[in-house]
Amino acid sequence: METTRAGRPRLTERRRPGTTAREEILDAAGELFTTRGYASTSTRAIAEAVGIRQASLYHYFKTKDELLSALLHQTVTPTLTFLSALRHDDPSAAQCLHALAAFDGAQLLTSRWNLGALYLLPELREARLATFWTERERLRLAYLDLSRAILASTGVADDAADLPFRLVESLVNMWSQPPQSDHAKLAGHVADACLRVLGVSDDLPDLRASTHHYLGRNGPAKVGRL
Amino acid sequence: METTRAGRPRLTERRRPGTTAREEILDAAGELFTTRGYASTSTRAIAEAVGIRQASLYHYFKTKDELLSALLHQTVTPTLTFLSALRHDDPSAAQCLHALAAFDGAQLLTSRWNLGALYLLPELREARLATFWTERERLRLAYLDLSRAILASTGVADDAADLPFRLVESLVNMWSQPPQSDHAKLAGHVADACLRVLGVSDDLPDLRASTHHYLGRNGPAKVGRL
Repeated sequence: METTRAGRPRLTERRRPGTTAREEILDAAGELFTTRGYASTSTRAIAEAVGIRQASLYHYFKTKDELLSALLHQTVTPTLTFLSALRHDDPSAAQCLHALAAFDGAQLLTSRWNLGALYLLPELREARLATFWTERERLRLAYLDLSRAILASTGVADDAADLPFRLVESLVNMWSQPPQSDHAKLAGHVADACLRVLGVSDDLPDLRASTHHYLGRNGPAKVGRL
Repeated sequence: METTRAGRPRLTERRRPGTTAREEILDAAGELFTTRGYASTSTRAIAEAVGIRQASLYHYFKTKDELLSALLHQTVTPTLTFLSALRHDDPSAAQCLHALAAFDGAQLLTSRWNLGALYLLPELREARLATFWTERERLRLAYLDLSRAILASTGVADDAADLPFRLVESLVNMWSQPPQSDHAKLAGHVADACLRVLGVSDDLPDLRASTHHYLGRNGPAKVGRL
């Protein structure tokens, strides 16, 4: 058990992870949206879960939609940042897709709340979440481009091109809290599976090695969250 | 354009597909749960969408949970029935998995409402939906057993065993209404992908032929819905 840092309790005990009020609010919203449901959660309930007044919450987020949008961005932004860094190394399409899937999968599996589960909410079709959809579409198209480049050399039908993105996304259904101890291994197997559905199998040991290298340098721990 | 069967309108116009009031209610609930959200939909709104009184609805379903449970069963029951019929033919594990995935995938893609999108609802953790979870778990374990039998001969890591089920499930994210015209083709490609993630690739043409045979006999059109 950890000892507390201060001898006597702070007047305003910090209840949530995060170094800023904004992060604490996002954490509470992530918990309530994914455990009680989006429609059933009020901004007042979120403020109460953080231990602040509703008026203070509005200082950071004007609407519940804004909170949802910020949370959803957290599910794609780190991966887009990783991909952007990865591309500086000029990896092959197969190396790039394998590393991308392993990173993205690990992100989804280790998120504190299962935010990916919110993707299918009817509320998400709202135009107000358009910037999130644009970013997610950017990510999907990045997967698609890489998949198509690989399919061109394996001869597997082009219909398989969307499956790697969907395979990684399906990790949302395997999320657990606390994360499975072998989440990095599971994400790695999903990365393998992404290549297999495109018809690649012989090169997997080499691809695992290059992914290990890329993730070691730019892996989840080194990419900013929130 | 179709001509109407009767010269003058019926007093109580049937608004929804289904031959019984129960089916009409389920259709309306499926639409509202998947478009407006479960928490935001009242049983009164469902009754109104069917054109009946709320008291009449309660005659068929006592609670909103009962409605949700019935809808969710529709997403797994036809597949379990298909699998049961399939087993009488004593197919190999690979043949069985390929046909199962193609059938299950086609079901998910052609359902009138995207009911699979409800799987991740926080409300679904409720104990009242236990019978649905039991059936879905039966289906998941059937996939898992088949996958493990295949992995034993391909030498791919056992961690891939859950991926075929997840791949098919990911079709929930590709659902559209009306269904894509090539939904059977897409489901077939996902069936191929299920085998590929387990390390099978050479036998795919044969597996497609056997699946074509099994689906022709017991395919979606011949399996009862609702």
